[in-house]
Amino acid sequence: MDRIVIIGLGLIGGSLGMALKAAGIKNTELVGVDLERDAVGAAKKKGAVDVTVRLASEAVRGAQLIIVATPILAMPEVFKEIAPHLPEGCIVTDTGSTKQQVLRWAEELLPSNVSFIGGHPMAGKEVPGIGGASASLFQRATYCITPSASASRVAVEVVVGLATTVGATPYFVAADEHDMLVAGISHLPLLMSSALVTMITQNPSWDELSKLASSGFHDVSRLASSDINLSRGITLTNQAGMLHWLDSYLEVLRDYRRALAENAEALLEKLSSARDARDQWLLHLSEPQRDRLFQDLPTAGEQMMEMFMGGRLAQLLRQQEDTLKEIESKHPRR
Amino acid sequence: MDRIVIIGLGLIGGSLGMALKAAGIKNTELVGVDLERDAVGAAKKKGAVDVTVRLASEAVRGAQLIIVATPILAMPEVFKEIAPHLPEGCIVTDTGSTKQQVLRWAEELLPSNVSFIGGHPMAGKEVPGIGGASASLFQRATYCITPSASASRVAVEVVVGLATTVGATPYFVAADEHDMLVAGISHLPLLMSSALVTMITQNPSWDELSKLASSGFHDVSRLASSDINLSRGITLTNQAGMLHWLDSYLEVLRDYRRALAENAEALLEKLSSARDARDQWLLHLSEPQRDRLFQDLPTAGEQMMEMFMGGRLAQLLRQQEDTLKEIESKHPRR
Repeated sequence: MDRIVIIGLGLIGGSLGMALKAAGIKNTELVGVDLERDAVGAAKKKGAVDVTVRLASEAVRGAQLIIVATPILAMPEVFKEIAPHLPEGCIVTDTGSTKQQVLRWAEELLPSNVSFIGGHPMAGKEVPGIGGASASLFQRATYCITPSASASRVAVEVVVGLATTVGATPYFVAADEHDMLVAGISHLPLLMSSALVTMITQNPSWDELSKLASSGFHDVSRLASSDINLSRGITLTNQAGMLHWLDSYLEVLRDYRRALAENAEALLEKLSSARDARDQWLLHLSEPQRDRLFQDLPTAGEQMMEMFMGGRLAQLLRQQEDTLKEIESKHPRR
Repeated sequence: MDRIVIIGLGLIGGSLGMALKAAGIKNTELVGVDLERDAVGAAKKKGAVDVTVRLASEAVRGAQLIIVATPILAMPEVFKEIAPHLPEGCIVTDTGSTKQQVLRWAEELLPSNVSFIGGHPMAGKEVPGIGGASASLFQRATYCITPSASASRVAVEVVVGLATTVGATPYFVAADEHDMLVAGISHLPLLMSSALVTMITQNPSWDELSKLASSGFHDVSRLASSDINLSRGITLTNQAGMLHWLDSYLEVLRDYRRALAENAEALLEKLSSARDARDQWLLHLSEPQRDRLFQDLPTAGEQMMEMFMGGRLAQLLRQQEDTLKEIESKHPRR
């Protein structure tokens, strides 16, 4: 019997549990931990975990895979708490929205005999917490994977297996590149959306404006409703990336402004190009992304779930340990 | 038998026809006109109109209500074309996204013996054209109504009846105020969304960025896929309003930037306030808006459809004419 522990039963942690269950993983006990009693109760009710344990330090005993799905800023505390209790050779992964700082914390706080693999499933929802959790949240989503320098190959493959099992497409990316990319595609849109809401709702005409708000405003403002814990996490761990893209965005907006003021046709060309570019993107999306991306990965995807998520984690990690011992016995350290 | 003519069978015109049909209006012939054969065919197939007529000038003969739902910039041509053929006392309304310029065109180009009422249903969709049309597009949407100075009371009530019949909430607003409000709540979001797409898709890392794009980017960029005819119409008729709000938005973004660079907690306060404000707005939306807004209207809503959209248009307009004649006979012009 394998043991997978999910620490933090929010939207992501809860959905991971539900997706693993829905995929029918066998011979594996899913253990959930959360500080909030309500979340624990809801996770059980939703069938996101098999059992819940009050303390993370207890939960991780005998575990092969530990998924830390708390808010980013809670991670150093969680790492400290579980560090003394982690089984040798186990795999720790996270689901935080930024990766450089998390990898630094992992290196600093986790023992060197465990493998840390940074993870970030690119999926979200307006409804935060376990309430919004669903087994399908990660279907076709990109799942960023940033192994630490010391992570074993088996550990990488296990987290790849986790990603594919929940329906996502694994994507290897270095931590610094990850943080710069998400700052543009995800964190800047959050700022844009919130700034719009700040501007519109603080305008003296907000009462009248709100009457004219339709699906356009609703969609563009959606990210302003993001979980504030998430916003705090990314703001405090990805400031440089966000500043970079905000400056770039300000430049484009000023360029739009110039065109609007001086040359309507030039603005229309910009709008038209943006429309074409987005259409191209949508067209692209309709292809099964998985096939396209999967060729970069260490092993073929189909057998992943059976190999790494079907009660064989313990066996795999033992094999790895045996290999390491064998190597060590042949090349003893001096 | 009343005759309602819809000129321009796109998303809005088509949806208006379908919504009128779905509401079960009786003793009324719905006549459709469009320059595009495909749109005419699709509108018939979707049941958006009873009959189609090739020329707008022919279609308006004997009509009580003419709805001009073409792109804004086509409106002056349509007005010129129908002007010599409009029955005395008929009602002309439009569905354009801006109102000042449309009212100027109406005053300049339509005969003084018809009533022009500007209209703007606040509803849209990513899929433009008749393909995206649906009977439910206007459900609970705000329907802006800006009567011309010379419009009769009956004409205003008929357009209010049109709005409520298709499921929308009528909202009276002066043309200049309308244009300033929509520039903020609708046209600025279009610019924001397009500028984001311009920036992201022209970045050298677009290939990598696109792999990380999730629902957040999808939503915030949605308006960039707006119909380019719509963008052209608003850009060329609402430049001042758009510049005003773009400047205001740039200021808020610079304010966000300062906070991000200097004081993360201040930024988090802004994000938190924006979140609260949007939550309040969503909470508000869940109330039936109609009840809240309807009290401003000239008559109660429930009987509107029967009164104004059930084969009684001709009768109403005749009554109005009789009243006018009576008044005139009592107070003869000198």
